[in-house]
Amino acid sequence: MFDQLATPCLVLDEARMMRNINRLRTRSEALGVDLRPHLKTCKSVEVARRVLHEGGAATVSTLKEVEEFAAAGVDDVVYAVGIAPDKLEAVAELRRSGCDVKVLLDSLEQAEAVVAAGVPALIEIDSDRHRGGVRADDPMLIDIGQTLDKNGLLRGVLTHAGESYSVSGREQHAAFAEMERSEAVAAANALRAAGLSCEVVSVGSTPTAHAATDLTGVTELRAGVYVFFDLVMAGIGVCSVDDIALSVLTTVIGHQKERGWILCDAGWMAMSRDRGTANQTVDQGYGIVCDASGNPFNDLIVAAANQEHGTIAVRAGSGASLPDLPVGTKIRILPNHACATAAQHESYNVISEGEDKVQNWPRFRGW
Amino acid sequence: MFDQLATPCLVLDEARMMRNINRLRTRSEALGVDLRPHLKTCKSVEVARRVLHEGGAATVSTLKEVEEFAAAGVDDVVYAVGIAPDKLEAVAELRRSGCDVKVLLDSLEQAEAVVAAGVPALIEIDSDRHRGGVRADDPMLIDIGQTLDKNGLLRGVLTHAGESYSVSGREQHAAFAEMERSEAVAAANALRAAGLSCEVVSVGSTPTAHAATDLTGVTELRAGVYVFFDLVMAGIGVCSVDDIALSVLTTVIGHQKERGWILCDAGWMAMSRDRGTANQTVDQGYGIVCDASGNPFNDLIVAAANQEHGTIAVRAGSGASLPDLPVGTKIRILPNHACATAAQHESYNVISEGEDKVQNWPRFRGW
Repeated sequence: MFDQLATPCLVLDEARMMRNINRLRTRSEALGVDLRPHLKTCKSVEVARRVLHEGGAATVSTLKEVEEFAAAGVDDVVYAVGIAPDKLEAVAELRRSGCDVKVLLDSLEQAEAVVAAGVPALIEIDSDRHRGGVRADDPMLIDIGQTLDKNGLLRGVLTHAGESYSVSGREQHAAFAEMERSEAVAAANALRAAGLSCEVVSVGSTPTAHAATDLTGVTELRAGVYVFFDLVMAGIGVCSVDDIALSVLTTVIGHQKERGWILCDAGWMAMSRDRGTANQTVDQGYGIVCDASGNPFNDLIVAAANQEHGTIAVRAGSGASLPDLPVGTKIRILPNHACATAAQHESYNVISEGEDKVQNWPRFRGW
Repeated sequence: MFDQLATPCLVLDEARMMRNINRLRTRSEALGVDLRPHLKTCKSVEVARRVLHEGGAATVSTLKEVEEFAAAGVDDVVYAVGIAPDKLEAVAELRRSGCDVKVLLDSLEQAEAVVAAGVPALIEIDSDRHRGGVRADDPMLIDIGQTLDKNGLLRGVLTHAGESYSVSGREQHAAFAEMERSEAVAAANALRAAGLSCEVVSVGSTPTAHAATDLTGVTELRAGVYVFFDLVMAGIGVCSVDDIALSVLTTVIGHQKERGWILCDAGWMAMSRDRGTANQTVDQGYGIVCDASGNPFNDLIVAAANQEHGTIAVRAGSGASLPDLPVGTKIRILPNHACATAAQHESYNVISEGEDKVQNWPRFRGW
């Protein structure tokens, strides 16, 4: 099936991806909120078509993503990284061309720039002390809200509990989901109490989206990496290894038998330098090694990586034995972090159930 | 100067780059060996034109690099990653088009594939137990050599002491340089003693190339990252921070004053996930923060990174104060690892002494 592919390259299992997509779609419907998928993971129009509900609402992380997805017909986008004032001219131009882009901000300086450009915005709320955002009880929230609202540009509030990635299990993720919900709803209520409009209350991350039990007051849910999943998400219990839809196809290029090493042509250039499982209960190195059909070998990981070399070894202490994989054997590696690994490649080689032919879906990059 | 650039993006200081290029060129001349620069760092025809001596000898890490540089007129290339047999057809085709590509191998299986394809090869020698290669006293060396030589395809031996990156200071790097030299020369002598030809004895890494004092028996020296240098190389004493020619231009997008954070739009997508300084004496986070002219602020680093966010903070324990950098300020970040950071971008924005205009040099990627 993979004979025509030059390694290393991405393989995307469409059936697994659709299962992941449907899982969160069903959840968000049951929770009674809209889903606004984050397209920073896939950066692919073909994937976006399968993720988005009726062509609609998307989240992105770069101006390039706004441009590419707008050109593909996506007309409702939240650009969810604090806006740099000198990007507003480009955003306003994209709005004039018909895409309803909203930006994100957490300062008065940004609010004034946004007003000057006439671009609607969401206020970033800090629910977990992770990164940007204002707290619901910060008087600055109202100042920013007033500046936007008097110009008709206040769309709502948005929060993301990035810290939820650092804890494991449904109970802890549900606690972060409630932290997102309560802080975002409190901020929305504070704005409304000040006489301002706050239509959108947007929350989410892949762990919290899959654990939330009550989203009262929330209008929309965001998540990104769930479309592919990865070893970091499996390591904190959000998915199983069998849910991971993305892998890197690689070729065995050598052996160091004394040291128990198999060398392959997927180094960090193909896998990314992401070592997100390094501090988890099980360190997966640079990824879990599978056969060409995607079945993991016992305790076999990419233990080390150079630019174009992966060093495969049995997990230390596991007692597993090294499989016999001659030079030229094709294998697949499940990545730590799908967003980072996918970003190293120019396209997805898509395998689908009951289909022998591998499709190629381009992805884009840059800013 | 940078007003027209959308952030994040790469900035390349041409004067620093030329100083780095000339430094190793002078060294290799004094050592009496040819220099075969590794182009995996730059992946740029414009940079290659400045690095290569009279258009000549280059080292690369992917077939894509062979193709791109051959198309630009580079006609003597060592593809220095253990060859996957199914890539030999493409290599043979590139040879027929006029580029003298040599491949690398360390097994009989590969030697037989190489003979079938009629492609000349170097045998990889393991001088530091770091990755691939055979030892000089391994009987396999002669078996491989005979297979290649009887078909006129044995060009020589090649070694790379990747472990030299893990030690600091000229004395230790010189010890690794001698390890490279002695093992490679021993392998060449073992082949010659068996009646086989061994014209090329190729050694090198950036740390060893800058520390070697005697390369008797060696014919060529390889190095790659020295063209740009980076914080990992500065951390082990191969260069100073002022030698680093590559940086990422970024814009301040927010503040968390209570926590002492400045947020910028260079996250790990712009810097790469490389944390090569994490285990060095001074951990530089995701990079050292400089003003737009390239002057480092005191003890200011990118302490954490998300996909499109960098979190800038004062180095813990330094007592330095956070500079006042309003939203919209342009700053530059020196990277941990130039190969990894450059790979995240599509072009270099090149600044040159006495020149107000920023040039744009494309880079390529993929395999």
